[in-house]
Amino acid sequence: MKTAATELLDIEAPIFAFSHCRDVVAATSKAGGFGVLGAAWMTPEHLEQELKWIDDHVEGRPYGVDMVFSSTATAVDFKETPRELVPEENRRFINELMDQDGVPPLSEEDAKGWYAEYARNLAFSPEASEALLDVALRHPVKLVVSALGVAPDHVIKRVHDYGAKFGALVGSARQAQKQVAAGVDIIVAQGSEAGGHTGEISSLVLWPQIVDAVAPVPVLAAGGIGRGRQMAAAIALGAEGVWCGTIWLGTVESELAPDMRDVLYAAKADDAVITYGYTGKPCRAIRSKYTEAWKRSDAPKPLKAVPMQSILSGEPFRRAERAHRKDWMTYAAGQIVELVNEPVSVKTVIYDMILEYAEAMDRLSQVNED
Amino acid sequence: MKTAATELLDIEAPIFAFSHCRDVVAATSKAGGFGVLGAAWMTPEHLEQELKWIDDHVEGRPYGVDMVFSSTATAVDFKETPRELVPEENRRFINELMDQDGVPPLSEEDAKGWYAEYARNLAFSPEASEALLDVALRHPVKLVVSALGVAPDHVIKRVHDYGAKFGALVGSARQAQKQVAAGVDIIVAQGSEAGGHTGEISSLVLWPQIVDAVAPVPVLAAGGIGRGRQMAAAIALGAEGVWCGTIWLGTVESELAPDMRDVLYAAKADDAVITYGYTGKPCRAIRSKYTEAWKRSDAPKPLKAVPMQSILSGEPFRRAERAHRKDWMTYAAGQIVELVNEPVSVKTVIYDMILEYAEAMDRLSQVNED
Repeated sequence: MKTAATELLDIEAPIFAFSHCRDVVAATSKAGGFGVLGAAWMTPEHLEQELKWIDDHVEGRPYGVDMVFSSTATAVDFKETPRELVPEENRRFINELMDQDGVPPLSEEDAKGWYAEYARNLAFSPEASEALLDVALRHPVKLVVSALGVAPDHVIKRVHDYGAKFGALVGSARQAQKQVAAGVDIIVAQGSEAGGHTGEISSLVLWPQIVDAVAPVPVLAAGGIGRGRQMAAAIALGAEGVWCGTIWLGTVESELAPDMRDVLYAAKADDAVITYGYTGKPCRAIRSKYTEAWKRSDAPKPLKAVPMQSILSGEPFRRAERAHRKDWMTYAAGQIVELVNEPVSVKTVIYDMILEYAEAMDRLSQVNED
Repeated sequence: MKTAATELLDIEAPIFAFSHCRDVVAATSKAGGFGVLGAAWMTPEHLEQELKWIDDHVEGRPYGVDMVFSSTATAVDFKETPRELVPEENRRFINELMDQDGVPPLSEEDAKGWYAEYARNLAFSPEASEALLDVALRHPVKLVVSALGVAPDHVIKRVHDYGAKFGALVGSARQAQKQVAAGVDIIVAQGSEAGGHTGEISSLVLWPQIVDAVAPVPVLAAGGIGRGRQMAAAIALGAEGVWCGTIWLGTVESELAPDMRDVLYAAKADDAVITYGYTGKPCRAIRSKYTEAWKRSDAPKPLKAVPMQSILSGEPFRRAERAHRKDWMTYAAGQIVELVNEPVSVKTVIYDMILEYAEAMDRLSQVNED
């Protein structure tokens, strides 16, 4: 396959893997695709460690990093204890529901430790993003992607001067045009069926809108892609490649804990629901008692100021994890989670995707022969 | 193009037009596609009149009808005034909001007339459906589609004995399997981006699920299709054709009133929102003051018993129409409403769709050459 994306980044197949797991990133790039490490939640030290590992394992293949360049994130003063930044009423609401449902509470030490550890990773301020970028640009990254927000001019220039490309994830044609105006080289157009933060327009409708809006800038299709037929659809709709996240969560290379894997393996397409309880913004994640709690009529409003709801959600997530309570666990995932059923290798996922893509092409030829 | 759907119904292009307008139905079939008349809201007399007109204009090309076979619809006793069946509190809520916003009220006569006329068309009982079927089977219909619910065995048998095919609209693989078990010949798989009643799973994810679940029964793709690239995606995903509704609303042949056309021409993809205010069930329709009203915290719960909310919505809809208040108008439409921008002919829509489909095929060939 040859598309603007394979040319831009010198890869064999236009399959991009977004993952928080370094093993998934390296395995994708080694298989001929392009791995992108989700670094937004990492500290600079952690990112350094992960990129070092990738460099040692990726056999010289190209890879990228994904981070947040949000101008709207609240700068959290980490001298304070983050728990005190979260309204007590909101903490109490979710903790009482878990109490009533027999989920053992965290020890005070565990809870405090969680807030201290978690909050450190949620520093979405411009300074924090640039500190991550400092680390990334000491490694042979070929692509830096903004998962949220238009990066400042000097950031995009720095990446270009370094010799890497700049990408951006968007959920509307307007956002895509803003990113292109800022100098972005490649757009990731993400439909509403995607996992994580997502807009309202479905992939089928959104992709061609964005392709037309930013042409000739190449567009990667994201949201709802886990198999070859969906990749064929993406290319037919004008995309130059596919950007997948959910499909890697259950792979052998994924670092997800066994309980969470079970949750994902059991989930159907309509279990991937929009919740405000995860981060305070609309985010598609697996339905659980946690996501349902925030829909109750007596629930406090989710905290909108980034990253407050994310800080708040850390405690109940750890609580569910410690107690192995799968009914309270949730994880950001898209509707194709229904395809995530067993631990296969990243290479197998990619191979199957390409095989089914080829089958779809054969089918199209037959339909059109007549 | 040659697919299982073109073979099954002896048509040239696997493009199905669902429409309440007889002119759209006839124009589609004459252009080589397959028109399906939405008859659910019609009285038997009205349907007879429409089918007679189609027979006189369709030049012998095949066409179909679409109706509801709901076992859950409440049998409305039309000896009562339907207005009295609707809770006074719910009527008052919406009427007061319109009062406050300066929308002139209907005259008592007009309001009463509306309820009497409207309710007659909302007879979704099994008896009412069979009365419509009696009419349809006096005309050369080639396809009867259930828009909602599994039709009783004897109904499907009657259609088959008549020599027509039976289809069914579904939003999940489970529903599709039930329909196939009941003897349905062709499935219309409708993703969440569609107009009207819709499920939660997007077309990109849903279509291949359903194709696999019911193979070898042919599947038509619905939801999010208004142009050739989307049709190419549908075929790539395993569909045997496309079923479109929204794209015809703005055509020359559509009977939609000028005000409502303006509303549709102005709407963007994210203006097609899910509302419970239209029918009591999740229904995608154009955002307006009417749809927003039912999201207010002081709004009464929409009436769930079919067809009560539909009866209720008739009065404010007529009120907005009489006053030419576009800000209060809404109409069931899918996310591709963004493509509905001017009055073009049905033939042009079909021609453009086939042309862009061919372009998408060329593009795919280029991508795969390498």
